[in-house]
Amino acid sequence: MCQLLGMNCNIPTDILFSFEGFHRRGGLTDQHADGFGIAFFEGAGCRLFIDDQPSAHSPVAELIRRYPIKSKNVIAHIRKATQGRIALENTHPFHRELWGRYWIFAHNGNLENFAPPQGQYYRPVGDTDSEAAFCLLLEQLRQQFDQLPPLPVLTQAIYALAAQIRQHGVFNFMLSNGDALFTHCSTHLHYLVRQAPFSTAHLIDNDVNIDFAEVTTPNDRVAVIATLPLTDNEAWTAHPKDTVLVFRDGSPLEG
Amino acid sequence: MCQLLGMNCNIPTDILFSFEGFHRRGGLTDQHADGFGIAFFEGAGCRLFIDDQPSAHSPVAELIRRYPIKSKNVIAHIRKATQGRIALENTHPFHRELWGRYWIFAHNGNLENFAPPQGQYYRPVGDTDSEAAFCLLLEQLRQQFDQLPPLPVLTQAIYALAAQIRQHGVFNFMLSNGDALFTHCSTHLHYLVRQAPFSTAHLIDNDVNIDFAEVTTPNDRVAVIATLPLTDNEAWTAHPKDTVLVFRDGSPLEG
Repeated sequence: MCQLLGMNCNIPTDILFSFEGFHRRGGLTDQHADGFGIAFFEGAGCRLFIDDQPSAHSPVAELIRRYPIKSKNVIAHIRKATQGRIALENTHPFHRELWGRYWIFAHNGNLENFAPPQGQYYRPVGDTDSEAAFCLLLEQLRQQFDQLPPLPVLTQAIYALAAQIRQHGVFNFMLSNGDALFTHCSTHLHYLVRQAPFSTAHLIDNDVNIDFAEVTTPNDRVAVIATLPLTDNEAWTAHPKDTVLVFRDGSPLEG
Repeated sequence: MCQLLGMNCNIPTDILFSFEGFHRRGGLTDQHADGFGIAFFEGAGCRLFIDDQPSAHSPVAELIRRYPIKSKNVIAHIRKATQGRIALENTHPFHRELWGRYWIFAHNGNLENFAPPQGQYYRPVGDTDSEAAFCLLLEQLRQQFDQLPPLPVLTQAIYALAAQIRQHGVFNFMLSNGDALFTHCSTHLHYLVRQAPFSTAHLIDNDVNIDFAEVTTPNDRVAVIATLPLTDNEAWTAHPKDTVLVFRDGSPLEG
């Protein structure tokens, strides 16, 4: 299986601390060594860094560790291949344009007997179940809506599509258009919201502490979502199963 | 105006030497300081690095200079903004998926009174004439063909669309799907083919020599295409105007 990391904030924030622990799971502290990727939205634009080398040894991951890119929505993925060769076109996150916005998607899990028909608007480039699921999601959304619908309508449409696709297997995913971050949990996802009063956090995968009070303002709010908790002294909430959560401005929306 | 750099090869090759001179035009030896980007195809996969910082000072450009990514098709662009703000979503190259392949596009020039209608399949995310032209190109190709057509058919379709769009102004562009590299010249593009017997090349923008005989095999063939020649001791050919060339396996195709 793979591991997912997402961040959603109310002001552009760097992900250096969380990525510091996360990237070590790609070949050092855990066995997710079949590539990694990370996408950063900056306004409507998006930077996507992917590498089919393990994140613990990738020059691209090394850049990410040193370059404090500030973003309100980040999705990262380290891969343990289940379906699809180890190749750049099979490396998450995947990206497409829908309704004049970029959309980024990463998946943890395994979908079996999943072969959606060829889409009119979106077709996979690689051969993973994950990219096929992403294309099916966007295809169905594009067929249902000609423009971006209001957030509650969009969320329920994503929920209904996720409920169909998860009949094929484990379907933990993260999806963002740079405005909101949608998460769906079949088995394992955890999240926390960091906000004032900030305290010190300690990484599980690396003996590193950070005192967020020193690097934040009282108005900052950051949600971090990950397959497994990244820190051992903060209260992580288990993501409810078979449910879509929507994170916006650094916290999960109600309803 | 902006500057373009493309490379098309018969075996995966790194672009370190050409990029060494090219990236200095983004803020050091020339005034194209409004962002840069470079895309590398690796099989059907594609890495796209973009930054809205000048290429001469960008940490991302620094990574590219040190990481010998091997690719058969590369497109790079340094930007001098004419239309569209300096923002990540306006940074070339642009990318979309068509017929289950990624397509990469970069433009040098300025299109005036160019406002194509909203596409069914492709919509711009940013506000440049360049991304609008790319979306129109793909939209028209998708409307004409449900699958990737044979290369001569595709080339002529691209030529016909370029002839329409260039009525709005200067339209030098590079387009690739990882198999072939299509170039169109309105004003300035130059190219050369490096093949055995290899010799030594000297960069214009930096006092650097490379002896390609030491870093190649006799079967290697590499076409380099650039707005202005990058070396001062090789024979660059001017790209014929109002024409599409197709580069494949390191040389321009006839016809």
